[in-house]
Amino acid sequence: MQGYVAEDLTDDQIARQAAVHGPLAQAVRDLVDATIRTEVDGAEIAAVQTEVAALTDRLRARQIEGSYGVRVGPDGRRTRTWGNAVVGLRNAVAPPLVMAHDPEGRAWSDFTLGAAYEGPPGLVHGGVAAMILDQVLGEAAGAGGRPGMTGTLTVRYRRPTPLGPLRAEAHIERHDAHKTFVEGAISDAGGVTVEAEGLFILPQWARAELSRRREGFE
Amino acid sequence: MQGYVAEDLTDDQIARQAAVHGPLAQAVRDLVDATIRTEVDGAEIAAVQTEVAALTDRLRARQIEGSYGVRVGPDGRRTRTWGNAVVGLRNAVAPPLVMAHDPEGRAWSDFTLGAAYEGPPGLVHGGVAAMILDQVLGEAAGAGGRPGMTGTLTVRYRRPTPLGPLRAEAHIERHDAHKTFVEGAISDAGGVTVEAEGLFILPQWARAELSRRREGFE
Repeated sequence: MQGYVAEDLTDDQIARQAAVHGPLAQAVRDLVDATIRTEVDGAEIAAVQTEVAALTDRLRARQIEGSYGVRVGPDGRRTRTWGNAVVGLRNAVAPPLVMAHDPEGRAWSDFTLGAAYEGPPGLVHGGVAAMILDQVLGEAAGAGGRPGMTGTLTVRYRRPTPLGPLRAEAHIERHDAHKTFVEGAISDAGGVTVEAEGLFILPQWARAELSRRREGFE
Repeated sequence: MQGYVAEDLTDDQIARQAAVHGPLAQAVRDLVDATIRTEVDGAEIAAVQTEVAALTDRLRARQIEGSYGVRVGPDGRRTRTWGNAVVGLRNAVAPPLVMAHDPEGRAWSDFTLGAAYEGPPGLVHGGVAAMILDQVLGEAAGAGGRPGMTGTLTVRYRRPTPLGPLRAEAHIERHDAHKTFVEGAISDAGGVTVEAEGLFILPQWARAELSRRREGFE
């Protein structure tokens, strides 16, 4: 796929697709966790591996070329970013974050990170924290009507972030022309652990793409 | 586990463990990719999901409590960071990066990112680029004998990073006392796409932990 793919699905159709693909991805997330933590013996590991490969073959019996891309509805909204590495409903690499937004340019999410997101023992990988903040800051920019790609992201680690339940939130701080400045943080029950500032830019080629996309529906 | 766990395995024993767990995690990575890209029908998805859950149960028949942690050999080297979100041999969220180092404080890796690491269509998620750079910059600090946790990470996106074959590299720029400044970048065949600077700090509690760990082997 690898592009902005126009589609014209009803909300019901999208919900039905989500009900099929969401639970599969969640089952694969559980398998990822078990793969890290299992202590069964080598013969059993090998047997499970063979069966995992067989299931992969069944799914690949019919599949899209390349990556999932982003499916865009007739109104130009991004209706399905299901392949996304942070929020993708179909992507077992994604925790996934379920995002909330408001039109003032705020975005937030409550989520839980398990063994698959570890860096130092028992702690969230610093890079995972950066990855999540990039997404949440970008969603805040988009929520405020100022979508863009990350230009610069600065992440400050205040204290270690424990694995477990967390919150991430971000808001637009200010903007000018095609640049939007966003701030955000990850918190645990004890308060902020990681802070970030991001500069989001809508580059020339993306403005052209958006323009083409809108024309396609007119 | 969730800690620095001392272990005393020979290189051969570690290699045998890697030969068991590495291929399972790789098979799960393929399944993650297929889960994103499959177009088989809903009944087949549901059937595969049931079998994935059964395989998870088999792996969970015996498993460690909590996350994998970091297994440390008698010399204090981190012999097994197999749960790590970026380099973890057993972690299907990790691409994984296979790192090379030199004692001058350089680290680098050639790797390929597929559908599971997508942000904008056909492109690496900006947060994934940040995540990888955090790891590679931290490895450069460690390779130069100055291990630490990320204090600040600044990532500058020069141009979009395509999914596919990439290289990440980093080197220590300078250091003072417990602070190490590292620079690095991700490149595709056409040159640098993303640059990063990181400040790595060995915090008080980590210095105490390292000190305790070393005493444990004396």
